[in-house]
Amino acid sequence: MDFHTEFKPLTVQPQEIEGKSFNMIDEEFGEHAFTKRQYKVVQRVVHASADFELGHSMLFHDEAIQAGINAIKRGEQVYADVQMILSGVSKGRIEKHGGSVNVYISDPDVMEEAKRLNTTRAIISVRKAIQQFDGGVFAIGNAPTALLELIRLIKEGYAKPSLVIGLPVGFVSAPESKEELAKLDVPFITNVGRKGGSTITVAALNAISLLAEKA
Amino acid sequence: MDFHTEFKPLTVQPQEIEGKSFNMIDEEFGEHAFTKRQYKVVQRVVHASADFELGHSMLFHDEAIQAGINAIKRGEQVYADVQMILSGVSKGRIEKHGGSVNVYISDPDVMEEAKRLNTTRAIISVRKAIQQFDGGVFAIGNAPTALLELIRLIKEGYAKPSLVIGLPVGFVSAPESKEELAKLDVPFITNVGRKGGSTITVAALNAISLLAEKA
Repeated sequence: MDFHTEFKPLTVQPQEIEGKSFNMIDEEFGEHAFTKRQYKVVQRVVHASADFELGHSMLFHDEAIQAGINAIKRGEQVYADVQMILSGVSKGRIEKHGGSVNVYISDPDVMEEAKRLNTTRAIISVRKAIQQFDGGVFAIGNAPTALLELIRLIKEGYAKPSLVIGLPVGFVSAPESKEELAKLDVPFITNVGRKGGSTITVAALNAISLLAEKA
Repeated sequence: MDFHTEFKPLTVQPQEIEGKSFNMIDEEFGEHAFTKRQYKVVQRVVHASADFELGHSMLFHDEAIQAGINAIKRGEQVYADVQMILSGVSKGRIEKHGGSVNVYISDPDVMEEAKRLNTTRAIISVRKAIQQFDGGVFAIGNAPTALLELIRLIKEGYAKPSLVIGLPVGFVSAPESKEELAKLDVPFITNVGRKGGSTITVAALNAISLLAEKA
């Protein structure tokens, strides 16, 4: 088969599309009280979702952006609750500083321990992360149980993450888990309500590593 | 570290959460004209996004659901435009019939060919899929260029997919690509507007394989 007979080279390059999209987002976003750097994260979230409501629902701890930049540049490890985040995130900007993105949810030891304790793999995988590294960026886009466990471990003094990106999507537990996160005095990026998910978490994480590149 | 001191076994099981979420979706969804089986797809899309607007924007070719079920049960191959879809989708219900989920975007031959022709890897990976298998389920959640190329190949008689799930997200090209898809008389699942993405595409694909299980 020769698919090339009708082939026309691209007239619009991907980077051009991204620039145009960001201009459209800026025009339509409306008023807000985000700082300039927080808005960079919000912009990517809207770019990944085409959802302005989600963009306006974003919530930042005052130190979140700087803490995230510092963590990436120090080469701290990144934890992600699900494989989709690992697949979607731009790993180069994290790895060049020595960090990597870690998902433990399908590790045999995590599965075994979850079964033994009659709990979720998400909870055990957070515990594994806490045992594997100090500080770190915790990116949770799927499992409210992972976020709730992380919050518990922070409160009890076991965990001291450099940044928590908590953006699980869902009708049950997800909104509540994000409310709990927003009460903590740790650097966090989260949002109000049910919306979120892996692609949104990837967008936030990518925005932070981009800011780290320019910082 | 002993994290188990405060450990409480789960009182709410994941399946219970899913059931509760689906009840909430049913209660809030409001009026619609979807068939019973189309609504199963819509319900999962809303579950994955917490976005009722997105749910109501879904669009189905009349034969889409049945064609998708048949394709899965015949063990046809599934193409996905990005790795996130492969990571997120429930593969067991596809693989048990002999199908598998295929992503070509990072294959060396695809990267080389895209460079040679000055085009996107997404376009070349769609062409590769067409050369690899007949029929098939095409799940596109990210790259409008992939969807537009598939539409072109269908129109020119090179491709005859059993089902096209076209749900790219974005401000530029994405809405237009989905409009073009909705004009074709091939089994499609898409939506109107900018919203969509990998998690939404995964939800639609999972819904179809679940329907295949019960058919």
